[in-house]
Amino acid sequence: MSDTIKYLLPEEQIPKTWYNIAADLPVPQSPVLNPGTGQPIGPEDLAPLFPMALIGQEVSQEREIEIPDPVRDVYRQWRCTPLFRARRLEKALDTPAKIYYKYEGVSPAGSHKPNTAVAQAFYNKEEGIKKICTETGAGQWGSSMAFAGSLFGIDVQVYMVKISYNQKPYRRALMETYGAECFASPSDRTEAGRAILAQDPDSTGSLGMAISEAVEVAATNDDTKYSLGSVLNHVLTHQTVIGQEAMLQMEMAGDYPDVVIGAAGGGSNFAGIAFPFIGANLRGGPKVRAVAVEPAACPTLTRGVYAYDFGDTGHLTPLMRMHTLGSAFVPPGFHAGGLRYHGMAGMVSHLAEQGLIDAVAYHQNPCFAAGVQFARAEGIVPAPESTHAAKAAIDEALKCKEEGVSRTILFNLSGHGHFDMQAYTDYHAGLLKDEDYDEAALKASLDQLPQVAAE
Amino acid sequence: MSDTIKYLLPEEQIPKTWYNIAADLPVPQSPVLNPGTGQPIGPEDLAPLFPMALIGQEVSQEREIEIPDPVRDVYRQWRCTPLFRARRLEKALDTPAKIYYKYEGVSPAGSHKPNTAVAQAFYNKEEGIKKICTETGAGQWGSSMAFAGSLFGIDVQVYMVKISYNQKPYRRALMETYGAECFASPSDRTEAGRAILAQDPDSTGSLGMAISEAVEVAATNDDTKYSLGSVLNHVLTHQTVIGQEAMLQMEMAGDYPDVVIGAAGGGSNFAGIAFPFIGANLRGGPKVRAVAVEPAACPTLTRGVYAYDFGDTGHLTPLMRMHTLGSAFVPPGFHAGGLRYHGMAGMVSHLAEQGLIDAVAYHQNPCFAAGVQFARAEGIVPAPESTHAAKAAIDEALKCKEEGVSRTILFNLSGHGHFDMQAYTDYHAGLLKDEDYDEAALKASLDQLPQVAAE
Repeated sequence: MSDTIKYLLPEEQIPKTWYNIAADLPVPQSPVLNPGTGQPIGPEDLAPLFPMALIGQEVSQEREIEIPDPVRDVYRQWRCTPLFRARRLEKALDTPAKIYYKYEGVSPAGSHKPNTAVAQAFYNKEEGIKKICTETGAGQWGSSMAFAGSLFGIDVQVYMVKISYNQKPYRRALMETYGAECFASPSDRTEAGRAILAQDPDSTGSLGMAISEAVEVAATNDDTKYSLGSVLNHVLTHQTVIGQEAMLQMEMAGDYPDVVIGAAGGGSNFAGIAFPFIGANLRGGPKVRAVAVEPAACPTLTRGVYAYDFGDTGHLTPLMRMHTLGSAFVPPGFHAGGLRYHGMAGMVSHLAEQGLIDAVAYHQNPCFAAGVQFARAEGIVPAPESTHAAKAAIDEALKCKEEGVSRTILFNLSGHGHFDMQAYTDYHAGLLKDEDYDEAALKASLDQLPQVAAE
Repeated sequence: MSDTIKYLLPEEQIPKTWYNIAADLPVPQSPVLNPGTGQPIGPEDLAPLFPMALIGQEVSQEREIEIPDPVRDVYRQWRCTPLFRARRLEKALDTPAKIYYKYEGVSPAGSHKPNTAVAQAFYNKEEGIKKICTETGAGQWGSSMAFAGSLFGIDVQVYMVKISYNQKPYRRALMETYGAECFASPSDRTEAGRAILAQDPDSTGSLGMAISEAVEVAATNDDTKYSLGSVLNHVLTHQTVIGQEAMLQMEMAGDYPDVVIGAAGGGSNFAGIAFPFIGANLRGGPKVRAVAVEPAACPTLTRGVYAYDFGDTGHLTPLMRMHTLGSAFVPPGFHAGGLRYHGMAGMVSHLAEQGLIDAVAYHQNPCFAAGVQFARAEGIVPAPESTHAAKAAIDEALKCKEEGVSRTILFNLSGHGHFDMQAYTDYHAGLLKDEDYDEAALKASLDQLPQVAAE
């Protein structure tokens, strides 16, 4: 029986460094700007929000950043995560393609997010921080930060997008089980939240709004720092443990990917699997096509503009040059809450501009169909976010079949769907809509982009 | 930092045989009886329900039963499961005890149940069976059988206890994602179900009732067999991969358990971790105290009688000698649906009678408290069933602290709680009751035990 094959690294091969793609860029990334002065920000601008070690990583040009031993000790609980050759799926698709997936759902929180949460908690602890404030959409990030906080004895406060807070009580329960506090955003606990509620008392929230609230709490409390689960360079860098392990595991399999695929909301899931392969190519290694998969209802890479924009709705963050739908953009409701962000990581956007990555967008029904097909073949039920990567991988494999060629496909199965079974229930019942975003609202949102002289 | 340590076996050390404790018993187990004749049943009595290979395993006296390659190929997707030394929990408890846990939650269905589901699907497939009918309480078993059916191309029908069907839609969604059909039991699809509904149209169901329905469907359809997720010898035997792996992993750790702990509903979770250690002791190896942990609201081992009884409410099964609360017993509602069975595996009961195992019972609130304590230290949120084992392990570790001695404790963390976060929400909100069973109802149920001359 040609069955699914698992590749695991011995413990000593779990990465000892994170990979920082900034070191290998042919053209450097645009600087982050102070919205008041239009000038590049310095470490002191970020110091109220982040510990200095993370600020250093944010702008580092070092290729390898050492993973501190206490972080690596925690990683070892679930890393190396398995790389699977999806032989049962290949057979079901009757494709000549070879499909591999890296499975991050074995972490205690069930997704890839703890890779950076643990690192961030560690650096905050090192610098004497007592409390971390953050935001979360569907709750994958919030629960991972709650997990990491519980390990390092740091209090965690999470502002959770209100619609998810009400519709996804399971991840909220997980955060509370880890000892974190969780508030529905927009809330009346912050200036930013109160301003939004004054305009729209029924606001169901957005990631941009929740970021404003969490940033405000951190900026106005000395013992509290802010933490972000994606978008920023240091977060993307922490996630490269995924791709680095995958590279060694592909070597065990005697194979190398032609195509590397990851879902992209803020960008860290995609960056985690793809950056090490892109970097190897930039340093003269084999060519790899890297594909970021986004939701058609929130298509930052495929439909957004590349411009300086705020990371949040309340305009409390610095300006980042990125693919954006405008910070006022609120996507229609869909289940992959982790992909509902108006922007895209600056580094991922930069690579897209440089022609180093591709992007595709799918509606949610075909993604859940792919998730069900994947589950019946491989046994693992993907998180709604991860179904996007599965969909792109299956499409790629079917294209190989059409063309009669074999390519090697690798995708990041970033988390399991056990917290999100309501989405599958709705899918089975035919209740999921494939809504498009509102074109007029997108235009209005883009019209409000800040004017930046440096562009 | 003294962190959690993980032990993993190389792939070639994943067991090649299941361990059958029948071969090492000092006193043989009592036979299963035909309720009509009072005589021991033969293979032909079971043939309508099970494939011959499993009937053979049910009565086998061979110590080692070969694991077929296709089953082992599937096992390899998530086995060897990790054994952890819970150093962070030990530190939190400030105990001299060493605590190890075997984590079965890494399987695609999130629990230990696929260990036997995959084996059962394989043997049915080998004998040309097209459809398997089974029952489930909280849904761990049903979803595991659905998973196994999807791998081997066998249709799966699941009768799910009605109260769980309504209250736990997540596991139902999981079964449907794997392609299984799921019905609330008691249903009007079977004679057994209709008889129960005629007596009590509002019945919320029980495992005993759901078993009657599933057995009836299998017995009355030629292409359909029945499958049980616990209780029977072949099921317990399949689960011994857990304890066999744990034994080798403890060896890697340079340690051996003084105490082995597992939650016990039907008995397969406990048997899986404990039988290999008990067997080793019976063959002259080190003494191990094996502790089965049951819910105080359904205390078969600690409060039931050892007698011949039916396995189901409708009295369609043969008679097994076991610890039972009587087949008419319906426990009060509590969250660990996998522990709500009126009986206990005959083999586990026999070992209890022989003084080879201990049993303790806990109410659910202290178990969830242990689950939260465990999650905050070790990061993994236990399934409600598994919190029972965690509670017993923590109590054992605290006893070591009191006594100033170090013992080595091993428990089976049989599944994660990601499908059961509503239970944690209710626990956090103080909504969980520690109900006792009704003494009068227990007495009435025991009064209805069948009269068996052989006893």
